[in-house]
Amino acid sequence: MKRLIGVFVAMFLFVSAFSQSGGKVSDNLLMTSKILKMDRKYAIYLPADYETSDRSYPVLYLLHGAGDDQTGWVQFGEVKSIADKAIQEGKCTAMIIVMPDGDTGQRGYFNSPKGDWNYEDFFFQELMPYVEKTYRIRTHKRYRAIAGLSMGGGGTFMYALHHPELFSAACTLSAYAGPISLEEAATRWEKQYPGISKDEQAKYFTRHSALELIKNMPDDQKKSVRWYIDCGDDDFLYEGNSLIHIAMRKKEIPHEFRIRDGAHNWTYWREALPTVLEFVSQGFHQY
Amino acid sequence: MKRLIGVFVAMFLFVSAFSQSGGKVSDNLLMTSKILKMDRKYAIYLPADYETSDRSYPVLYLLHGAGDDQTGWVQFGEVKSIADKAIQEGKCTAMIIVMPDGDTGQRGYFNSPKGDWNYEDFFFQELMPYVEKTYRIRTHKRYRAIAGLSMGGGGTFMYALHHPELFSAACTLSAYAGPISLEEAATRWEKQYPGISKDEQAKYFTRHSALELIKNMPDDQKKSVRWYIDCGDDDFLYEGNSLIHIAMRKKEIPHEFRIRDGAHNWTYWREALPTVLEFVSQGFHQY
Amino acid sequence: MKRLIGVFVAMFLFVSAFSQSGGKVSDNLLMTSKILKMDRKYAIYLPADYETSDRSYPVLYLLHGAGDDQTGWVQFGEVKSIADKAIQEGKCTAMIIVMPDGDTGQRGYFNSPKGDWNYEDFFFQELMPYVEKTYRIRTHKRYRAIAGLSMGGGGTFMYALHHPELFSAACTLSAYAGPISLEEAATRWEKQYPGISKDEQAKYFTRHSALELIKNMPDDQKKSVRWYIDCGDDDFLYEGNSLIHIAMRKKEIPHEFRIRDGAHNWTYWREALPTVLEFVSQGFHQY
Amino acid sequence: MKRLIGVFVAMFLFVSAFSQSGGKVSDNLLMTSKILKMDRKYAIYLPADYETSDRSYPVLYLLHGAGDDQTGWVQFGEVKSIADKAIQEGKCTAMIIVMPDGDTGQRGYFNSPKGDWNYEDFFFQELMPYVEKTYRIRTHKRYRAIAGLSMGGGGTFMYALHHPELFSAACTLSAYAGPISLEEAATRWEKQYPGISKDEQAKYFTRHSALELIKNMPDDQKKSVRWYIDCGDDDFLYEGNSLIHIAMRKKEIPHEFRIRDGAHNWTYWREALPTVLEFVSQGFHQY
Repeated sequence: MKRLIGVFVAMFLFVSAFSQSGGKVSDNLLMTSKILKMDRKYAIYLPADYETSDRSYPVLYLLHGAGDDQTGWVQFGEVKSIADKAIQEGKCTAMIIVMPDGDTGQRGYFNSPKGDWNYEDFFFQELMPYVEKTYRIRTHKRYRAIAGLSMGGGGTFMYALHHPELFSAACTLSAYAGPISLEEAATRWEKQYPGISKDEQAKYFTRHSALELIKNMPDDQKKSVRWYIDCGDDDFLYEGNSLIHIAMRKKEIPHEFRIRDGAHNWTYWREALPTVLEFVSQGFHQY
Repeated sequence: MKRLIGVFVAMFLFVSAFSQSGGKVSDNLLMTSKILKMDRKYAIYLPADYETSDRSYPVLYLLHGAGDDQTGWVQFGEVKSIADKAIQEGKCTAMIIVMPDGDTGQRGYFNSPKGDWNYEDFFFQELMPYVEKTYRIRTHKRYRAIAGLSMGGGGTFMYALHHPELFSAACTLSAYAGPISLEEAATRWEKQYPGISKDEQAKYFTRHSALELIKNMPDDQKKSVRWYIDCGDDDFLYEGNSLIHIAMRKKEIPHEFRIRDGAHNWTYWREALPTVLEFVSQGFHQY
Repeated sequence: MKRLIGVFVAMFLFVSAFSQSGGKVSDNLLMTSKILKMDRKYAIYLPADYETSDRSYPVLYLLHGAGDDQTGWVQFGEVKSIADKAIQEGKCTAMIIVMPDGDTGQRGYFNSPKGDWNYEDFFFQELMPYVEKTYRIRTHKRYRAIAGLSMGGGGTFMYALHHPELFSAACTLSAYAGPISLEEAATRWEKQYPGISKDEQAKYFTRHSALELIKNMPDDQKKSVRWYIDCGDDDFLYEGNSLIHIAMRKKEIPHEFRIRDGAHNWTYWREALPTVLEFVSQGFHQY
Repeated sequence: MKRLIGVFVAMFLFVSAFSQSGGKVSDNLLMTSKILKMDRKYAIYLPADYETSDRSYPVLYLLHGAGDDQTGWVQFGEVKSIADKAIQEGKCTAMIIVMPDGDTGQRGYFNSPKGDWNYEDFFFQELMPYVEKTYRIRTHKRYRAIAGLSMGGGGTFMYALHHPELFSAACTLSAYAGPISLEEAATRWEKQYPGISKDEQAKYFTRHSALELIKNMPDDQKKSVRWYIDCGDDDFLYEGNSLIHIAMRKKEIPHEFRIRDGAHNWTYWREALPTVLEFVSQGFHQY
């Protein structure tokens, strides 16, 4: 009888393992970058039916914040349980979520002013092609979205503003959207990139200030990305986000904007994630 | 027989509890104003137990928008069913809601620059004393709050900024918060108040721009009013409200700020009202 | 002890009577018509807070079908429980619902071709003024709507097409919308109104065929009434309603149109009533 | 020990029941067409127990709209999650869903007038036999249904009207049902098929106008297909669908007809799909 009980327990565990319908997360995968001359980590979420079906999926690139790595959205962001639930309830479509590590070596998602650390090049020339080849990802712009929090919100702004031809939707959460003015940037950059000239600063500013990129956006680009911008009323990044809302309204760039109750923390971002998944899905789905 | 009387009493209380169909609304009441030299209309919400109890209540002054009158919050705003529900569910405390007509004769809640239409004086010297005498209203600042939408959000800003000693909470919905700059104001005021001098404009601006009043707020006033500010991301009044958020953050004036999905319409304001009632109640209640 | 039980029972009935929160229905009221030279019956629904509040309400005129009378919507249509529920759940605003008897004397809601039975005149010159004076009804067009089923759907079409200046919304359920063609009308009218000439037929047709009135609607009238038109796929009146949908689309007259699963019966109409109340409320409320 | 084996078997069944994460979708399969002289793509949905059971299934052919391909119902239509849910909840029976690509080469589901592009022949002579041989599909008419949206609704009309002996049910969503009149068709076809004669137009019209085919339907065919026809009240294809409803009612052809709130978009079609699956299942199941 004891053995029988043991069998029951074993079966129960087996059932539990199998019966968890839901997606699969890996948080410590590697790929090689020639541009950055090193291996780079990434995490990935594959939806529940990825193994059993034979179809391609839309993709969301989901960027973490400063001081974190590719495990942030997995561990702190609960990406698996939140995405599983949203898919099961029909709030979003099944999608692949790619979470690259933006923090090894040098911090951040951009090319440095001196061209000695070209993470943005790595993202578009190596990471994106690599995952889109390795996994069954749909490669048309319509099926590609990007989102991120804090520094990753900044990455989201820059990538979608630099490459509106590549993303159907972009969602920034509590984003650091780059410097608001060149003056503000100067002090920081002189420390961060010693020897940077005034000319280089000005050039770098036009490409790495979301506010500046929005103010100079060509008319034919205004509707090419669906924007969702969210920042808590107690967040220290309130000013940049509020000014971006004003700038987008004045330029008549369609965007959803939310200020909810909250600050710069994972509670805020976990609450935001279901809406992000639903928002990007509306584009993947069509209306 | 005594027991039988006890049964009757118990049953009566039971009946009272059940038979109450919520608060009572009147939307066409009159009072006389010496200041404005006319009769003025107002609407009032008295909570469900007003008739049967003998206590005093906190008061919320609830201001309508331009082009509307004292019936706006009753008919379009569903103040009765929303307040009934919030009180019954314990989301807010029982309170009296006073809705004055801000639109008869001349539009708006303020004194005119020339002093020929002194609605703000009427509000503080006549309306407030009148309703606080006529109804069982608690008259301590702690139990007095103000809220309003659009032009009434402007009234809310000015009244609570001019008289922080009178209101414990102020809630502005989609507020027109007065001119952002003196330049913006000049053109409008020259049409609206013919003959207004540059000096009068400057003086009027310092008293009727919420942004200006916030920037110049004395330190000891910063925590005297609990602020709740809400404006839709599609509202045409996005700029003033966003700049007020930035200004309040920079001055470290505590405030709740929300940007929800929506525009300048009653759907937005009906959705906001339960939160307004809950927010002002937190002050009436104490924490 | 028996007496005590008797008291309990009496109290229970008393409690039950009082504790039913909800509106009040009367279904056998009388008013005198000079135009029709007789007393006419009507039924009325007054919302739950009508007795305790002191405000005015929007009004819905709700017309019964052929062979029925003013009690139809009360008895078969469950107007009280459906309106109570919709108001309590916040799906519609509190409103007064007036249900006139369209069947005493001669059947129908219109003036007869010979002018010897002028029910439509009675409706606009006597009934409407009478109820709007007798009850606390808001008299601006914005707060007046009309709806009806079958023959009452026909009344709804004609009244709102003849008087777009009087109704903000019109809802027709399984409507008999008048003759589709003059030929179709001729045979019927020659029986119904013996001695009617070809000229009189043509004139009567232009005023009593919804299709004809829609095709000839002046441009400036197209958006003056919000339309909701609903007819089951098994209803014998399918053709008129489908042709009206086509005609309204071709004239670009905004309207909601529904074909649901069902036939010409009260199950269909009871299912429709909550949507009708919600639809007319959207206008009473503003968005 | 026998009891232990019994327990294992019971647990295995339990595990199987729980571990199934729904059906399997492939969206990029190929077959060769001699008729069209090219490879053709198709997508397929196999129900959850397809791999583990050894039975045959009913089949639904599900057609996409113009400008789309075989992935449309997979990506935008969410066919997997909707079918999984409907099957799990017992709303429909397990079935195979075949989604052919109707857009490569030349657009549409029909033979061209000149006979140089015979897609309809391909469908019946190659695709249907191929999938019914390749997958465990029941081949009796009772177990075969067809549905489609827009241009695919047109395909559904034509295939089921041309071959009522092959389909037990046909569901058209927002269908383009072919030309309403020969005059309407003429202009279009003269552009689309240069050199088409008046005679060829007339002949093509009798075979490719759903309205015409319905009006000329022989009596003994009226009940051979169960029809479900659905089109939004804001759809630009309102006229053809409404006229088909009228024509079917006049010919006494049994059919379900719905006009729901909505337009020509995927939101409408995703909402329709569960009803389509339930409707065709009622025939697969029998009542």
